Order: sequence, then structure tokens, then C-alpha cells
Amino acid sequence: MNEYLQLEKFFTRMNALDHASAILSWDESVMMPAQSGVARAAAQSELHVIKHEILINPELLELLQKVEENASSLHLWEQANFREMKKIILRAHAVKKDLVEAYSLAASECQQAWRIMRGENNWKDFLPLFEKLLLLARAEAQQRSQTMGMTGYDCLLDQFSPGITSSEISKIFNQVKSFLPALTQEIIDHQKSDPSSTDLPPIPIHLQKNLGLSLIKNLGFDMSKGRLDTSHHPFCGGVPQDIRMTTRYNISNFMESMMGTMHETGHALYEQNLPTKWNHQPVGMARGMDIHESQSLFFENCIGRNKHFFKFLFPVLETHLFKGANIPSPQRIFNLFNTIKRSFIRVNADEVTYPMHIILRYEIESDLISGKLEAKDLPEVWDFKMQTYLGLSTKDDFKNGCMQDVHWPSGAFGYFPSYSLGSILASQLFYKIKQSDPNFVENLTQGNLNFIKGWLNDKIWSQGSLLTSQELIFSATGESLNPSYFKNYLKEKYLE
Amino acid sequence: MNEYLQLEKFFTRMNALDHASAILSWDESVMMPAQSGVARAAAQSELHVIKHEILINPELLELLQKVEENASSLHLWEQANFREMKKIILRAHAVKKDLVEAYSLAASECQQAWRIMRGENNWKDFLPLFEKLLLLARAEAQQRSQTMGMTGYDCLLDQFSPGITSSEISKIFNQVKSFLPALTQEIIDHQKSDPSSTDLPPIPIHLQKNLGLSLIKNLGFDMSKGRLDTSHHPFCGGVPQDIRMTTRYNISNFMESMMGTMHETGHALYEQNLPTKWNHQPVGMARGMDIHESQSLFFENCIGRNKHFFKFLFPVLETHLFKGANIPSPQRIFNLFNTIKRSFIRVNADEVTYPMHIILRYEIESDLISGKLEAKDLPEVWDFKMQTYLGLSTKDDFKNGCMQDVHWPSGAFGYFPSYSLGSILASQLFYKIKQSDPNFVENLTQGNLNFIKGWLNDKIWSQGSLLTSQELIFSATGESLNPSYFKNYLKEKYLE
Repeated sequence: MNEYLQLEKFFTRMNALDHASAILSWDESVMMPAQSGVARAAAQSELHVIKHEILINPELLELLQKVEENASSLHLWEQANFREMKKIILRAHAVKKDLVEAYSLAASECQQAWRIMRGENNWKDFLPLFEKLLLLARAEAQQRSQTMGMTGYDCLLDQFSPGITSSEISKIFNQVKSFLPALTQEIIDHQKSDPSSTDLPPIPIHLQKNLGLSLIKNLGFDMSKGRLDTSHHPFCGGVPQDIRMTTRYNISNFMESMMGTMHETGHALYEQNLPTKWNHQPVGMARGMDIHESQSLFFENCIGRNKHFFKFLFPVLETHLFKGANIPSPQRIFNLFNTIKRSFIRVNADEVTYPMHIILRYEIESDLISGKLEAKDLPEVWDFKMQTYLGLSTKDDFKNGCMQDVHWPSGAFGYFPSYSLGSILASQLFYKIKQSDPNFVENLTQGNLNFIKGWLNDKIWSQGSLLTSQELIFSATGESLNPSYFKNYLKEKYLE
Repeated sequence: MNEYLQLEKFFTRMNALDHASAILSWDESVMMPAQSGVARAAAQSELHVIKHEILINPELLELLQKVEENASSLHLWEQANFREMKKIILRAHAVKKDLVEAYSLAASECQQAWRIMRGENNWKDFLPLFEKLLLLARAEAQQRSQTMGMTGYDCLLDQFSPGITSSEISKIFNQVKSFLPALTQEIIDHQKSDPSSTDLPPIPIHLQKNLGLSLIKNLGFDMSKGRLDTSHHPFCGGVPQDIRMTTRYNISNFMESMMGTMHETGHALYEQNLPTKWNHQPVGMARGMDIHESQSLFFENCIGRNKHFFKFLFPVLETHLFKGANIPSPQRIFNLFNTIKRSFIRVNADEVTYPMHIILRYEIESDLISGKLEAKDLPEVWDFKMQTYLGLSTKDDFKNGCMQDVHWPSGAFGYFPSYSLGSILASQLFYKIKQSDPNFVENLTQGNLNFIKGWLNDKIWSQGSLLTSQELIFSATGESLNPSYFKNYLKEKYLE
């Protein structure tokens, strides 16, 4: 067997560990009994270490070198696969085994503490665990930096949004900062003239479930290779051949589960339509979390909250939710779907204010990793930036401030930017698709997403990791990631 | 770190792979979407190979040798743990990697074909896949035999019922064969004089579910560390810290789910009460499938179908199942719980006829592995033995004959004897506990199982794999496994 095929076989094997971790992780959130968490966390951590140990086998480096010498004989997808393989293997070598173990353990401890202490608004007892984790995160970033020739924080970013650097992100985010605060105020002022929107009507959970199942089928989610369940925090997990979406239900706010489900369906469609032939190989995986978020936010915001699609959506809501009840006016529901308001909690933020939550986190985490900022000063900086960017104070309110997200306590530094990179890309894709489809408005009005899905499948989903992110964005849209599309999307949607 | 502790750490790590496989396996039966099976089977098979690859690392043999030299410095549990570690590592070395992979793949293919072809009664298309698997099973048995110095079939037995050999099993089973066919006829004749028992009343599934949950709590199953769900074939899976029991519901036969649940609870109590301190080590695991079955059959048959316990049970049934309906007479229900009848399907067989199903399979599989019998001759031999042992013909009825069980198609040769070894041990344990508890009848009548559970916890559950099976049985009951107890148990229960 030639060396390249040996590497393919190796990654097929590695893929089984990812498969296991993904299903265990879903199970932990959806099925696992209350007292089984310690054993599960230990098992997951050990699987992580096993994977790392296998990846740092010196034989792999020899294989890499041999394939490198004959790389020109590989066809296009194999070459891209080899590029991704190399990155994974070198990335594994970048961090010493002891540190991998220590980091995995510290993240597990910190996350478990967070689950309890966030509810208690208990920053004081959380801080030492977070400090310990941060020191290890810095050490990891530094070890990666030495091998990969990038800054430490860029190495962390690269795990989630491969190929984009902090200086590129800063440039994009600074553009967003230059227009978004004023635009937000303009939109909020504009919405004051809207007819006053009262609360959504209460909807029993079983009706919301039926609505969700109906919508995901309409969007094209393949139920023979996936499930929709309930969890505390919605997510899309599993593996491409077995996608596990979750949502959560709130009787007094059906929008939450509905939009959450549309969001996760965006992730799910991407995963279910990745190139089947390469499902077990690195090149067959989704391109990164930034591209992933562009898909989920596209389906949640660009489609789910679109005024044309709403003409299709409202009758579906009537059928599933409003039977026999007082039917609220379509305008009232639509307004509720698109009400803009500055708020404390990122996951509840609307599409207009959301990027400022991300920019805040991005600026803080890059300083935490570089050492410019210490963990103990986090609440103060958070409060300052919240006041500056969103006009809200989180002083002494850790629960709704710097303790609100699971990302840092679970060790995921460098993840946050992907949300807003995704949301910018979503608006860019939305514009390009609109330009390409002569029947765009009519299709949306009829809930016919075939053109959109065909376009996304062609340009994004079926491409897996064949291209780099930049190449993918350029080949799909004809230009680089450009925040002007986001600005224009918001202006057109909210002010025209 | 000394070498023994290195081995412990290693097995803690291996345990994570077992944890993953166990939960994935539960998920496959309970949660997985219809079309995700191929990817799951591949992942499970790869995990199996990964585990094998890690176990055959030559460093482990060096560690074993170093610990061996200082084994006397280990305390009792460590010594036993080391004995089990050694067995696992040497067992992994016994089979070549290529064969492990080929066997895992062939078993996966054969099992998937079986799932379809059994329903079609399609022996013809199943045979070539089964022949391929059998050849590999023989090769595996032979490779094991060379390393472990036992016959090939004994090596396979040892995976499920460690420490017992084919010649010991033959001796025990021959004793059973000497009394059971005549005793069965005697019991059937005796039951003819019973008042005729008609069908069980139909019971809605949600009521059966509530009954099951009530019973498992009463038996002491810890719901904070386990679940009860529904699957096509009932089983008890998961890990000691997270036990996943399943059952199946049949509206027209509540006994099936109820007794199935009591059976799985026997397995679950054993797992949940294994020594916590050793949960991740080989010595902390259940002693073997024969001991495991003794626990499940104890709770299903010795308790669940016991006339004294029935005095407690019937009011529970009334509360949960018969509300508002015509309440059947207790005697009628009790008789239905204990009706003896020769039948085709092992999993539906009663406790009296069950061992003949097992003896048949034991005799056949040992001949299949030794080469005395070929796969193509299986239907004929099956039919002949069914006629001899149970007076029933399975000619051309593969579905209800030699294709009825998943064990062989999934590659589990050597498993079947554990069921009947367990049932014999259950009656021996039942006798000893009855002797030890002065309030035995009263306790059973009140549904108070504290004495029984205390005894089993003390003698069996808390022992993990500290002792060999023979030592465990001897230390618990004061003698070796003795089929006379089974004979006397049946006579007393059905003829007195």
C-alpha cells in the first residue's frame, strides 16, 4: 500500500474516535443520568489523550515526508486531503503530551465548576480554576506558536476558523465597529414607530415540537440520518452520517425553539451534504466553524426572519400553533421575530447587536492569551466594554456578564470570532444568491428553497475542506469576506 | 511512577474506549436513526482495532514482566488486578492484528445480513457469510489456543465465562440432560391439572412503563446513574457509573416487559454495586457473563416468579395495571407467570425448558469451532437436536431454528453456556440465601429484598473480579457449581 493510502487508512481510524466523542457528547447533553457526569468527563478526556497519543506516533512524520516527496502525483482532492492531514499531525506534535492531559483535565474541572457557580453568580470561587486553565491555555498557545510560526492566539483561532489571522479579524471587526453602534441606534429609533409588539402567545410544547419537525423536513433535513431532541443548550452534533440536532422549548416563547431549530438545521444541512466519498477523511470535513456559522445564521436570520419567507411561514405557524386559539396578526409576529434590543446575553441577542458581543469577547480573549490581561481583571474589562459597546453595565453581575458563556470555562479560546465572521459571510452569500436567482422573492414567498440549497450545496457544502476558507469564500462569492454586505443587509432589512 | 501504577493508568485509559463502545452500542439500539448503521458499525469496528493495537504495544509486556518480579509486594486487590491485566494483555497478543480486523469486519457484515435475512427465512444467502465468519472464528480460536495452552473452544468460552472449561461444562450439562427432559414432562403433566389459564389482559404501554419504573426503584436500581429505555431486544448496557437498561413492550403481554425489566435489573444491580474504587480497572469488573446471568435470572425467576414475592407483587400490578379494568384473579396471573411449555425460541423459553436450548447450542458451537461440524450442516443438526431435546422440528424453518439468535452472526461463539451456568448458579444462590435468612418467606411476601441484596452485595457484587469464578462460587455458597440445586429448585417450585 502506498504511503498516501496508509495515511488515509490511518485517518479513517482516527475518525472512529471522533465519531465516538461526538455521540458521547450528544448523549451527555441529551440522555445521560444526572450522576454519571464524572465518569463521562473522564472517559472523554481519556479519548482525547488516546487520539493525541496516536497522532504523535513518529511513523506518521515519516509517512508525511514520503508523501510530500511525491505529492504532485496526487489528484486534487488527495492533495487537499494531504494538506489537511499534515496540518492535523503537525498541530498534534505542537503540544507536549503532559500539557494536553493537564489542559483537558483543567478544562473539564473548570467547566463542571462553571455549571454550578454561574447560577450562583460566584466569581470568587470560579476565578482560581479559571486562572489555572488560562495559564495552561497560554502555555498551549505558546507551544503551538513555536511549531506553527504564528502568534499564540492565531494558533488558537486556527483550530476553529482555519486560515484567518488575528490581524485580518481585527481589520474586519474594526470596520463593523465603525458603523454598527450608530446603525443599531438608528434601527432602534426606527422600530419605535412600529405598532407596539406585545408578547408571543403561549404554545404547548408538543405543538412546538410538531412545528419543528415539519420545518426541518421542509428545509431538507434527512431524518433517516439524524435526530432532533431536547437539551439545555441547543447544538448540532453527531457525525455527517448521523446528525444530532437539539433545541429547547419555552411555552411562552415559541420563537426560541423555532429559530433555534432553523439555526441548527443550517449546521445540519452543511454536515449532511458534505462529500460522502470523503466522509472519513480530513478533506471531507466542514471547512471551519466560521463557515459553519455562516450556514446556521443564513437559515436562521436571512431565511427564517425574512419578510418574503414569512408569507410562507405564517400559514405553517397557523396550522401547527394557533389552531383554535386567538390567531395573532402576522405583522405582530413578524415584528417580534425582528425586534432589535441591546441586551446582556449573547445567545439571546438579535442579529444586529450580536457582533458587538463577539467583538468584546474577541478583544478580551486575545488579551487574555497574550498576557495583556489577567483573569482577575476580567469582570472590570467586561463591564467597561459592555458599557462602551452596548450601553449596559455588568458590574457585580458575573452571571450575565463574563461568566455567561461555556466557551472559556471549557477551554475553547479562539472560538468566538467564528460567530460574527459567519454572520458577515451569511449576508454576503445572501446577496450573491439573490443576484443569481431571478425568482428569488417568489421562491422565498413559496417556501421553495431549492435554488438556495442547490447554490449552497454547489459552492459550500459539497466542497468540504477542498479549498482554504479564503479560497472558498472567493470562489463562492467572487470576492473576499466583506463586512459591507452585512451593513447593507441590515440597512435594507431594518431601515427600508 | 512504579510499573504497577503505570499499568493501572494504562487500563484506566483503555476503560475510556470500553465506555465509548458501550454507550455507542446502547445508542445504536435505542436512538440511532435508521440509515446511520453503516457508519456506526465502521466506527465500532475501528474502536475495537484501536484498542487491540494499544493492547499489543510491546512496552506492556515489559511492564508485565517487571511487575511479575515484584508481584508479592502488591496487596490482595492489586494482585488480582494484575492477574486480570495479564490475562487481557496476553489475550490480545494471542490474535494477529490482521485476523482481528478481518474477524471484526466479517462479524459486522454477517450480523447486518442476519438482521434482514432472518426475517426472510433466507438461509441460502446467509450461509456464505456465516461460513466466512466461521472460518475466521476457527482461525482465531486456533491462534488463541497456541498462546493460551487451552483448546480453541475453551479459549472462546474463557472470554465470556472465564475459568471454566468445556470438559467441566460438559459434565454439568450432562447432569442436567440426565434429569431435565423427564422432569419437564412431569411438570407439563402436572400443570395440566391447573385451572386453565387464558391470555393476559391487554395493558396500555404507558401503564407498563410506570410499572417498570416502580419495580426497578423497588429493587434498588439507582436512576441517578442509569436509565430504562425501549429497544427491539432488551439488554443491560452502559458502564457501572451509567447503566442503560432496555426492555420492550407488548400490549397483549405485560409479563414480557415486566419480567424482562426484572431480568435486566439483576444485571444492573450487579454493575451498579461493583466496587467503586476499582471501576476503571479489570479487577473492578463483573466476574463473567455466567455470574452476570446468575444475577439476572435470580431476579427474574427466583424472585419475580416466586409465589411468596407474588403476594407483594400482585397489589403492585393492581395499582399500576388493572385500575378500573376487570381485575384478573391472582392465581390466573401467577399461573401465567409460570407456565411451562416446549417452544422454538430460546429467548421466549421458560426456566424449565431453557437449559435444553442452551445445551443444544453448546454442543453445536463446540463442534463448529473444532471442525467436527460444518456451517452448511447446521440446519440438519439443529433440527435433529431440537427433536431429541424438545420434541420439536425446525426443518426448513431457519427463522425459528438455527437463525434465531444474534450471537453467532455477531461472532460471539462460546457465549451461550453462560446462560445456563447462570441459571444453575441462581438456584444454588437462592437455596443458600433461603438457608441464611430466618425471615426469608416473610421478607419475600413483603417485597423486602434487603436481606437478599445485602447477601448478594457482600458475596458477589462487591467482589468484582477479585476471585476466580470457582473461588467466588465456593466462597459464596460453600461448594462448587452444583446442578442438583437447579433440579431441586424446579421440583420444589413446580411439583410440590
